[in-house]
Amino acid sequence: MKNYINNPQAIEKRSFEIIGEELGSIHFPEETDSIVRRVIHTTADFEYARLIEFKNDAVNSGLKALAAGKKIYADTMMIKSAVNSRAMAMQGVEMVNYVHDEDVRAEAKERGVTRSTVAMEKAIKNGDIGIFAIGNAPTALYRLIAFIKDGASKPALIVGAPIGFVGAAESKKALDELDDFGVPYIRINGRKGGSPVVGAILNALLYRLGREW
Amino acid sequence: MKNYINNPQAIEKRSFEIIGEELGSIHFPEETDSIVRRVIHTTADFEYARLIEFKNDAVNSGLKALAAGKKIYADTMMIKSAVNSRAMAMQGVEMVNYVHDEDVRAEAKERGVTRSTVAMEKAIKNGDIGIFAIGNAPTALYRLIAFIKDGASKPALIVGAPIGFVGAAESKKALDELDDFGVPYIRINGRKGGSPVVGAILNALLYRLGREW
Repeated sequence: MKNYINNPQAIEKRSFEIIGEELGSIHFPEETDSIVRRVIHTTADFEYARLIEFKNDAVNSGLKALAAGKKIYADTMMIKSAVNSRAMAMQGVEMVNYVHDEDVRAEAKERGVTRSTVAMEKAIKNGDIGIFAIGNAPTALYRLIAFIKDGASKPALIVGAPIGFVGAAESKKALDELDDFGVPYIRINGRKGGSPVVGAILNALLYRLGREW
Repeated sequence: MKNYINNPQAIEKRSFEIIGEELGSIHFPEETDSIVRRVIHTTADFEYARLIEFKNDAVNSGLKALAAGKKIYADTMMIKSAVNSRAMAMQGVEMVNYVHDEDVRAEAKERGVTRSTVAMEKAIKNGDIGIFAIGNAPTALYRLIAFIKDGASKPALIVGAPIGFVGAAESKKALDELDDFGVPYIRINGRKGGSPVVGAILNALLYRLGREW
C-alpha cells in the first residue's frame, strides 16, 4: 500500500487540480464555474459539465436567498446529509424535509401517491421556503411546477435534479414552463442527478458566501 | 404537463423494465443480477454494470450477515439515509457511523487526518461490525484494509465504493490485498461510486431477505 494524502483540505485541493487538468481547454462562465466543478468533484462524472443548466439569474438569486437566511426545502434526507451544515449555519439557513412526517406518510398511502408529492404540498403551503432542492422525486418537481403555475409565490431558486428512468428527465424539462414566470432554476438535464448533485450545487453556492474547515 | 406515474411501486417496476430493455442481451449472473440492476436504477448510469465487482463469495456472506442481524458500519450519514430503514429493521440490523462524534472530530483535527480515518479506527476497535460500507472516504478504506492485514477480525463483507479523484480508485484497488485473507467484498472500480451506490447495494441485499412497501 502506498502513502496517501490524508488531510481533507489537501485532498480537495488536489481533486480540483485534477479536474482542471482534465477539463483542459474547457471553461465555464465565472458565475457558474465553481458550481460545475463541484458537481464534477462530487460525482467523478464529467458528463455533468454538459448536463447542468442555469436559468433566470439562478446563481445570483440563490446566493441572495442564502445570504438572507431563507429556508431550503429538500425532498430527501440525503440532501440534508450532503450539505455542509456549518456553512448553512454561517448564513442562518435551515433545511427542512417533510417526507418522513407521519401525516405525510399516512396521506400518501391513502391517496396512493408518493410521499414526495404530499411533502411538497406541505412545504408550499407553509410558504416560507426560499429554495426548493429536488434530488429524487419527479413527482415533487411536477407538483412544485403546477403550484407555481397556479399562482403560488415564486421561489428564489429551484434546484431540479431528480434522477432515474421514469419521469426524471421529463420533470426537469417541464421547468421550461416556469420561464414565463421568471423562476430561477438550476437543473440537470436527462436522467442523471440525485441528492449528492443537489448537495454539491448548494455547497458551491454556500462556499461563495463563506466556509470554515 | 403530461400525466405521470405517481405511485412508488409502479415507478420502480417501470424503471426496472426500462433498464431491462436497455440492457438488451446483456445478462448478469443470477447471484449478482438484482444488485447490479439496482445500482443502475439508483444512478441512471449503465457504466456501473462493468465497474462493479464481487469477490470471495461476497453476496452470500453479506446475506448471511444481514440475516443474522449483524451491524453495518457506514462511513457517511448519506448511506444511512439511502438504506431502507424498514428493511434493516426487518432483519434487526443496525447501522452506525462515528464520523460526527465529538471525540472523532477532535482527534482528527489534532492529528491532521480525516475524520473518516479516526471513525474507522473506532469502528474496528468496537469489534462488533459485520459489514463495512464505504461510500466516501478512501482514507477509511485504506485504514480498514491495514487493520485486517494487521490481524483485525475478518468482516462478513466490505462494500468498497469511495468516489472521487484522489485515492478513490487506488483505495478500491488495494482491496486486492485482502484476497489472500479471503475477505468478501463488493467494489466499484475506478473513480465512481458514492453513498447512493452503497445504499443501492445494501438495499438490493436486504430486499433479497424481505421487503415491505
